Formats: sequence, C-alpha cells, structure tokens
Amino acid sequence: MENFTFYAPTYFDFGKGAEQHVGELVRRFGGKKVLFHYGGGSIVKSGLYDTVKKCLEAEGIAYVELGGVKPNPRSGLVYEGIELCRREGVDFILAVGGGSVIDSSKAIAAGCCYDGDFWDFYSGKAKIQQAVPVGTILTIAAAGSEGSTNSVITNEETGYKKGAGSDVLRPKFSILNPEFTCSLPPYQTAAGATDIMIHICERYFSNTEEVEITDRLCEAVLKTMIHETPRVIEDPQNYDARANIMWAGMLAHNNVCGVGRVQDWASHHIEHELSALYDVTHGAGLAVIAPAWMRYVLKINPHKLVQFALRVWDIEPRENEEKTALKGIEAFERFLKDIGMPLTFAEIGADEKDAELMTSKLLNTKDTEGNYVQLRAEDVMKIYHYAATGEM
Amino acid sequence: MENFTFYAPTYFDFGKGAEQHVGELVRRFGGKKVLFHYGGGSIVKSGLYDTVKKCLEAEGIAYVELGGVKPNPRSGLVYEGIELCRREGVDFILAVGGGSVIDSSKAIAAGCCYDGDFWDFYSGKAKIQQAVPVGTILTIAAAGSEGSTNSVITNEETGYKKGAGSDVLRPKFSILNPEFTCSLPPYQTAAGATDIMIHICERYFSNTEEVEITDRLCEAVLKTMIHETPRVIEDPQNYDARANIMWAGMLAHNNVCGVGRVQDWASHHIEHELSALYDVTHGAGLAVIAPAWMRYVLKINPHKLVQFALRVWDIEPRENEEKTALKGIEAFERFLKDIGMPLTFAEIGADEKDAELMTSKLLNTKDTEGNYVQLRAEDVMKIYHYAATGEM
Repeated sequence: MENFTFYAPTYFDFGKGAEQHVGELVRRFGGKKVLFHYGGGSIVKSGLYDTVKKCLEAEGIAYVELGGVKPNPRSGLVYEGIELCRREGVDFILAVGGGSVIDSSKAIAAGCCYDGDFWDFYSGKAKIQQAVPVGTILTIAAAGSEGSTNSVITNEETGYKKGAGSDVLRPKFSILNPEFTCSLPPYQTAAGATDIMIHICERYFSNTEEVEITDRLCEAVLKTMIHETPRVIEDPQNYDARANIMWAGMLAHNNVCGVGRVQDWASHHIEHELSALYDVTHGAGLAVIAPAWMRYVLKINPHKLVQFALRVWDIEPRENEEKTALKGIEAFERFLKDIGMPLTFAEIGADEKDAELMTSKLLNTKDTEGNYVQLRAEDVMKIYHYAATGEM
Repeated sequence: MENFTFYAPTYFDFGKGAEQHVGELVRRFGGKKVLFHYGGGSIVKSGLYDTVKKCLEAEGIAYVELGGVKPNPRSGLVYEGIELCRREGVDFILAVGGGSVIDSSKAIAAGCCYDGDFWDFYSGKAKIQQAVPVGTILTIAAAGSEGSTNSVITNEETGYKKGAGSDVLRPKFSILNPEFTCSLPPYQTAAGATDIMIHICERYFSNTEEVEITDRLCEAVLKTMIHETPRVIEDPQNYDARANIMWAGMLAHNNVCGVGRVQDWASHHIEHELSALYDVTHGAGLAVIAPAWMRYVLKINPHKLVQFALRVWDIEPRENEEKTALKGIEAFERFLKDIGMPLTFAEIGADEKDAELMTSKLLNTKDTEGNYVQLRAEDVMKIYHYAATGEM
C-alpha cells in the first residue's frame, strides 16, 4: 500500500425531502449572495427550481441565476458565470442538477478567484489554489462530482475536453434525494450507472500490491451496481434501488475506494476525446471504450482482470488466467448490453477515421496514457480500432 | 434505505513517516497551546514521544503533557486533564496512542467547554455542544476513534462504562502510520481486529431493508479482516497487512458503513459491563459476547445471519436458514479462536454470578438493548449464560 492523504469534508444530506434544507445549508456554509446554477427545464418540471428559490428566500439569502448548462459542459457558460459572479459579488455557488452543472459550477468557482483565463487550470498551465465555496443538489447519479475534487469542461473553441481538480473544489455540502433521479430516462440512467462503475474500475485496475481493503471496497460498489442497475431499468420508480445507486455514485468518486494505490484513468481520458468530438453521453462513451481497453490490456497485464472476473462477476476459474479474465470482460459487456448501453462506435455515431485525431489530442502533452498499462499512441489507436470494428 | 446525513471531515495522513507532519497539522487546524495526551511507555520506546515533541517545537507550538491513560480509560484522568487544560489555556488536544487515549482526549475536549460535570455527557444528562479541537496519532488499530464521533469512558467511582458522541468530537486530523502497530503483541492485535469486526457487525445486523450498498461495504471490511488478521498474527512485522487492518479499522467506525440503516450495538453495550467489572480488553470481551449474541438472536431473527454466513464466510446453503446461519457463526468462532481470542467467561476470568449485576447496570435507564432484536433483561441474562456455560 502506498502512503496517502484522505480528506473528504463534504456534508451529505441524503433522502426524501432533503432539498428542503438547502437554505439552511447555504447559510451554515457562509453563503450570503448565491449563484443558482442549473441546466434546463427538468428542475422546473420536478418543482425543484421553485423549492430552491423558496428555501433561499426563506433564509433571506440573495441569489442570481444562470441556467443553460449542457451535458459535456462548455467553457462559454463558465466565462459567463465568472463574469456574473464578479459583477454581482457572489460568495457561494449552488449547483442544482447533474455532474455537468456541478462541474460547470466548480470551474466558475475556481475561475472567480483567478486573474488569468480559467482554462489554464484545465490545460495544466496553472494549479487551482482557491475557489468560491460550492454546494450541490444532485439530480443524476453518475459523475460523482457531488463528493469529488474534480471537474471536466469542454473548450468550445479548441474542442478539448479536460479535467482539473483541487481539494478546494470539494463541495461544502451535497443534497442527494433519490426521488429526483426517478424521472431520468432509461438510457441516461444506464449511462450514469456505467460512469459510476468505470470510476471504480479506474481505481481498481492498479499494479499497487497489498491493497485488499480498497480492492474489496471497489468490488462492493461494483456488486451493488450489478444488483441495482437492472432493477431501475425495469422499474424507474424503485426508490430504494435509486437510493443505493445514488450513494454508490458518490462513493465511487470521492476516492474512499482509491486511496493508497496508483490509479489508471485511461478509459476516461480515451473517452473524453470521443465525447468532445461527437458530444456523446459520457457514460455511453465509456461503455464503448472501457471493455475495449480491458480486452487490449488483457494481453499485456491480466492479473487484476482475473480478480475482476472471479470476485466481481463470480466467474469459475478457467484453464488459464487469460480465459478466466476474458469471461469477466464478456460478462461486463453482456451487462452493459442488457441495460441498453452501446458497445461499438457505430452505435454512438463515431467513425474510426477520427481515431488519429483523437489520439493526437489525447497525447498532446504526454507520451503515454494510463498506469495499469502505459499506453502509447499505437496502443490507443488499437483500442479505438477494437471499439470501431470489434477486432483486436 | 432510511434518510441520513454523513459528515466526516477528518483529515487523514496515512503511511510511513506521516508522524513527521504532526506540527504542521496542529498549526493548520489552529492549535497554539497543545495538551499532549498519551498512555504509558510504548510511545517513548518507539521514539514517537520524542518525534512529537520535536515536531511541535519546530513549529513553535507550546504544549503541556498528560500521560498515564490506561485501557478502558478512567474518569479520574479526564478530570485531571480538564483542570490542566483550563489552567494552561490549552486550545488543542493531541492524542498519541490507541483508542483509549483518543477517547480520554475527546472527554477532556468536551469537558473543557462545559460548566458542569463532564460525566453528564456519558450518563445522558447533557448533550455535547462544543469541544476543544482534537488531533490524533494512532498507534493501535482497533477502536476507530481516530475517525469517529464517539468516546467511551469508565467512571471509577460508580463502575459504569458509558459512551458519548457528537459531531464536534470528530478529530480534525488523524495520523496513521502502520509501522507503530507492528510492535503490538499478538493478543492485543487480535483483540483490536475483533473490535474492528464487531464495529461492522453492529451496523450490519439491521432490519432496515434495501441497504445493499452499505451491506456490501460491511462485507468488504469483514472479508479484509478475515484475510489480513491471520497474516499479522503469524508475522507481526507485515507492514502491508498492518496497513490494511489500520485503514479498515477507521472505515469500520467513521460510519461510512452504517449510514441509512438502524444499527444494533447490543454486543458492545453488553460487553461494556463486562470490561467495566473485570477490566478485560474490550476486543477480547467482544469475542466472548458477540458470538453468544449471534447464537441467541439466531432463533428469533435469522435473516441477516444467513447473509453473514453466505457472503462473509462463504458457507454453502444448508437445508434451512437456521443451519446455514449457524455454520456462519461457527466459522466466526473458529476464526476468533485461531487468532487467539477467548470465547468463554472462564478464559477472561468472568463469573456468571455477576450476570444479574451487569444486566441491571446495562438496563439502568432503558427497558431494552439493541435493535436487530430488542433484548429485555431475561434475554441479556441468557446471552451472559451462554458465554459462561456454552449452553443456550
């Protein structure tokens, strides 16, 4: 096990009616003038929009609004948010929505405290030192941004989709009421579940030895997702299954499952190029990329894929490691297919002719991607090739 | 799943050499005048005592010392600590040792901010509202107090051993270097492991339905302990096994494994009477009580014991639930015996003639104990009887 620090001081308020506490929580964490940041009409339809306004007003908290966050959130709205916050003297950002809204809020929060271009944080030119405090009301179980230090933004001008992170971006509070996720369509639900599972896989696939406790925690979250996801696909109104998935989504990305080990993150970064180019739902992109990544690295480094097969998918050991591991990957692919996720470029409208462009963007500032296996450009090309053709 | 809040803002610094950061962490969390609280000579022997003093001095942090904390920490030293802190204007308490030192520190921390008798918090007469901030350097993996809201103190005058808790008691930081646990004798190591496992069991045995995610997390910690504990008994210097156990011990009691569900805690409370009377090591007392509790509640409410057998101990299903569950309990008892834990009153020098006294002290302010099965006095007597005689 490697040395580590772990600090996750987000206050979680989980369950039915938790959104009613938003005013009191904003006040508790020092918010006097709030940016109320959200996406489109779904929070209006669910009544959450009105509830938030009512709760803020009841506490006498002033606010300005900025809606319009889209999936794969864009830099343009972040610039607009930063300007609005500065002009209005905002001291707290309230993100109401899914991971895109929270990520957009985090980018605005960091950008407000920085004299340069906020994109410097995402391009790697600068490190986030300070941010306006952020609180969230989560409405989609997927990104884990409600408990994480991270944010991913797409630069509209350059087409780059990049992440940035800092302890100061960890939300002060997050309100999680699973009822708000019950109206999510099956495709988005399944894409969210896939994202959650791959957040775990990025941590699970590690060469760090002797990390039994985090291995077991990772397996616990994956087992939960395998059990609960088909239940919500079949019955979207199943509160308890939604609740288990929602909390699993937070645990998958606040890093409690990732401490003390080198993590991978190749699948995420390879997928980011896909969703930056085609604006595909991130989780759906991961369903295409992650199994292709697994099939590719299997030939080079099978050991953790064997454990994945045995412990997560309950595969009986086969005549050799590779065959055992392959059965695990096949079980995962079958699972993804059954919950309605795509597995190929064709299903998401991607084209292999862009593989070279995506690979060069991915590796524009580094020679390799990932840690479980360090992938060079030719390796990444082969993963895109498998996703496009089903042939290794 | 039940509604819940979860807030665990302790900063963890884990791994080799982490103790070197103590001065900087005390300063970061606002300490200017510190109470350096510890037990006996083991921290002198390991060099930790000198390291702490050197690190505090290097940061220019003033401190006073109070050693002498014993296992099952006593009220007398708490009163002494409160007086010392007031007299010296202490604004931060640094606990260096195991759970007893941390629990004693928490009691002092709460007592300093209260005009009445600190025991009011433990007797249930008053609620903890405020406390001096506490930081810890943990040297024994067991109690989980390094990440928890709780503290247990034994009142020397009355013989009561009681717990108190509050969000304000959660340590600001905890330094966990597994190397310091390598010198712990096998019996203390095994008792610590037992305590960790029963912290999970108290959360696991619940009638709350649809809590798959926390069930799985509980099973993950138990599986880890089953794997790692025999390894450290065999090779006390095994750093990685010690590291896995140390982090599991924190996770077992910071409540990440317990949210959204009604918890039990009967075994702990029944054991507290035992260790209050005989001054037995808490984990060893739990090894005697918890299996006896399991055997007793099996007849009344077997369902979660069946899951415990199947998922934690990998028992093949038997002809009925009771038989399956019993195999799980037997596997647990065998495990405890193998790591050197006692299973009977005789092994810890307890006598059944005290069962009535212990039961009346346990139920002095309530009619029943526990939630998985609500135990009345006659039920508790039967559990003590089984522990004493091996007969139900």
